[in-house]
Order: sequence, then structure tokens, then C-alpha cells
Amino acid sequence: MWTEKELASRINTAVEWLRSNVAEANAKGVVVGISGGVDSAVVTGLCVRAFPENCIGVIMPSHSNPEDREDALWIAEGFELRPLEIDLSEAHTLIFNQVKQGLPMSSQGSQMVGEAMSQGNLKARLRMSTLYAVANAMNYLVVGTDNAPESYTGYFTKYGDGGVDLLPISSLTKTEVRAWAWMLGLPQKIAMRVPTAGLWPGQTDEAEMGLTYDLIDRYLLGEEVPAEAKERIEKLHHQSEHKRNLPPSLELPKLERLD
Amino acid sequence: MWTEKELASRINTAVEWLRSNVAEANAKGVVVGISGGVDSAVVTGLCVRAFPENCIGVIMPSHSNPEDREDALWIAEGFELRPLEIDLSEAHTLIFNQVKQGLPMSSQGSQMVGEAMSQGNLKARLRMSTLYAVANAMNYLVVGTDNAPESYTGYFTKYGDGGVDLLPISSLTKTEVRAWAWMLGLPQKIAMRVPTAGLWPGQTDEAEMGLTYDLIDRYLLGEEVPAEAKERIEKLHHQSEHKRNLPPSLELPKLERLD
Repeated sequence: MWTEKELASRINTAVEWLRSNVAEANAKGVVVGISGGVDSAVVTGLCVRAFPENCIGVIMPSHSNPEDREDALWIAEGFELRPLEIDLSEAHTLIFNQVKQGLPMSSQGSQMVGEAMSQGNLKARLRMSTLYAVANAMNYLVVGTDNAPESYTGYFTKYGDGGVDLLPISSLTKTEVRAWAWMLGLPQKIAMRVPTAGLWPGQTDEAEMGLTYDLIDRYLLGEEVPAEAKERIEKLHHQSEHKRNLPPSLELPKLERLD
Repeated sequence: MWTEKELASRINTAVEWLRSNVAEANAKGVVVGISGGVDSAVVTGLCVRAFPENCIGVIMPSHSNPEDREDALWIAEGFELRPLEIDLSEAHTLIFNQVKQGLPMSSQGSQMVGEAMSQGNLKARLRMSTLYAVANAMNYLVVGTDNAPESYTGYFTKYGDGGVDLLPISSLTKTEVRAWAWMLGLPQKIAMRVPTAGLWPGQTDEAEMGLTYDLIDRYLLGEEVPAEAKERIEKLHHQSEHKRNLPPSLELPKLERLD
């Protein structure tokens, strides 16, 4: 496997990259959402190293598993970071119930899939909105936690966890994220947690993508993977193209004023 | 000024552009937020023309001026659109109060500017989150209302009103948006409303930008404007570069696994 020296040097690069981007934006520090998972744990570690005095970690339960909150608190404590806790459950219910009641045909079965997605993505977008409320008040930047397999397959919420100022780990395989976790002193328990976006109870990333992170990692590294997996990855990549690009805008030619 | 024929042809182009983008995304219709202002009134008109049966207009008061709501309802009625009304005031208060209480130094005067911005931008982001909750449930796309002067100077909230799927009027001057309003049958009262992002009471776009739309329009059309205005526009454009681009991501070289 990789040498400690290699990993340490890559982690340093990421820490320096955060510092130089924040300086360039004339900002004073960074905000990161801590979910309890390995990706946000690693990004929290990078943020604390880059800005020991100007880093805010935010824990945002929203009808969530209490264990996630425990893990998130525990991660913050490990990095000697006093987290900001903001419960989004009630705000989520207030908005979602109004949406549901107002929609045409909202009680019909055919819309159940759309409804679960709508409800889950709303959580991710309320988290983004909250992180920016903190960042705006402090003149900090919001740091994202999406990794390479998530980014490539589009396994993130547009303007939700995808709505950030800086992406420090979006070129890392999941395997490398776990190696960074180990280098940053995070325990096995966090590094090997079953990955979940936490959008509904029992959700796991791999079941929802229909792919293992190991397979996507191998594919991204140019290794051989079964044809079926390759096809699935490319399909997800293609379908999510709009999430990795700016929204299309209609460009009409200038209409000169003759007045 | 412009001929009706020219304007009608440009409006048709925008309507067709919406239809073809929605078809390409395999979506079924469109969602737009109606604020009461001329930009969203025009976009609502385009959306209704493009998808008479599959268009949802959403009115989202958030501690707002009641007159804005009246105008928004009136615009929806004019286009024979039954609007969905979702009040975000309580959700906004719930989130913002927690943020404010949790922040270090939150009671100090030096943070008042950041606080007003944080509070205002949170409104715009909750509106985006709500529009997507509707869009996700219905398999619709979210249509944006930002115009050319707003886009060029960055006078929009990143991942707020800037967080959309399609931008049909982002190449139009404010003057042309007003002309389209007239073509779409909107009354003078709406076309000539004092533009405001509605982020706090008494806010007007022009006071906040320190520029008139007329000056920005002229500059964007390549006309002569005072040196001071040019400087201000270019400064705002430069400072908001990050809002018109994807977030920077750290690209580390692939680290091959040797196991």
C-alpha cells in the first residue's frame, strides 16, 4: 500500500491549498458540516490543521439517527473543536409538510419515489443553507466533503452537499479518504463506518448506487472492473452531468437600443 | 426602440429553449418562484407559455412585505396559474436564531453587517431549497430569474436565487426584461416596480449595488458610461467571480494502489 510519507505529503498539500484559497478570497476561516461519517471527519481534520483558531464544525441533525450525532460530537472532540449544533428537524417538517400539502396528486402512489427524494434532498439543502448562514456571519468559506466516487457518479445533492466554496477531497478515492482518516488519528470505527448520505433511515450509499465504493475506486484508478459495473458507473456519470456543470443559460444576441 | 416583432421572436426563442431543455433532462415541467418583481413575473410568463399544464409558481413569504405577496398572487392570477404558497418565516426564524446564539462574538457590533447578509441570504437559500422540494417531487426543473446586470455584477445569492437548473433571462438587460413584461401583458405597475431582492425591509437593489440598472445596462451594451460607474461594475464583477464558476477542487495526482 501507500507509504506514510506519501500520504502525509498529500495531506499537507490539502491543508496549504485550503489556506491559500481562503486568503485569496479575503476570508477569515472555514466552516464544515460534521455528519459522523469518514469524509466529513477527514475534512474536519484538514480544516482544523489549516485554521486551528478559525474553524467552525457544525452538527445538523434532521430527524437523524442519534448515533450519527454521537459520532459527530466525538469527532469534534477528538480534534478539540467545540462544535456548533443546529437542529433542523422542525424547520424541515415545517417546509416539507407545506410542500406536500400543496402539491397536486400528492397522495398518489406514483409520486412516492419523488417524495422520498424530495424529502431527503431537502435535508441536504437545509444543511447547506445553515452552513452558509454561519459562514456569511463570520466571513468564512464553506468547505465540502464530497469524494471522487461521489463526484464522478453524481452521488450528491445539487446545491446541497454539492453547494460549497472549496472541494479539498473530491479527487480522492474512498480508499484514500480512509487512509487519510488513519493518518489524521481517526479511529478504525469512523474510517470503516458504512457510508450513508443520511437522507432517510437505513439508507446506505452502496445500496442506493447499486455499486461498491471499491469498484468505483478501481474504475477511477484505471483498473479492470466487470463490464456491468463500468456500464452502471458511466450511466450515473452521464445522468449527473448537470450537477457538475453551471446551469445552462440562454444566450440571446445583444439588442441595441436605438433611442 | 425595439420592434414588437423582434421582441416576440426573442420571447418565442426563450419559450422553445425552456421546452427543449426540459425534454432533454427527461423532466415533465417547470417550477418558478414568484416574488412580485418584474424578473420573476416575466419568467413565470415564459414558463406558462412553455408548459401551460405543467408549471408550478411558488410564492414564498419570509417575514416579507405583504404587498409583495399581493403582487405575486396577482401575477399568478393574470397568467391563470394557481400558485403554491409556502410561508418560510417560521423555518427561517428557527434556523437563524440557532445560528446566532451559537456563534462566537455574535452580540458584537462588528458582526452586524455579516449578520444582516447572513439573514438575508438564508431567505434566498430557503427559497431555493423549497423550489427543489417541489421540483424533486414532481420531476420538474427549477427555472431561474436572474437577469444580465445581476449576473454580471454578482447581485444574487450563491446557491440561493443562483441555485437553479435553467437561466432563460440571464443575458437580458433590465430594460429588455421590462419590454418583455409589456409584451407578456404585464401591467406598468409590475414592469416599473422598484427592484428589490426582498432580503430585508426597505432594501433596493440600486442602493445596495451603488449603481442604477440603466447604467449597468448601458455598460453591458457597450455604450459609454462614466469612469466611476465602469470601475464599480468591474469591481463587483471581479469580486463575484466565484459565484459564476464551479467551486475550486484540489486535483491531486492519482495514487495507484500497489496491493
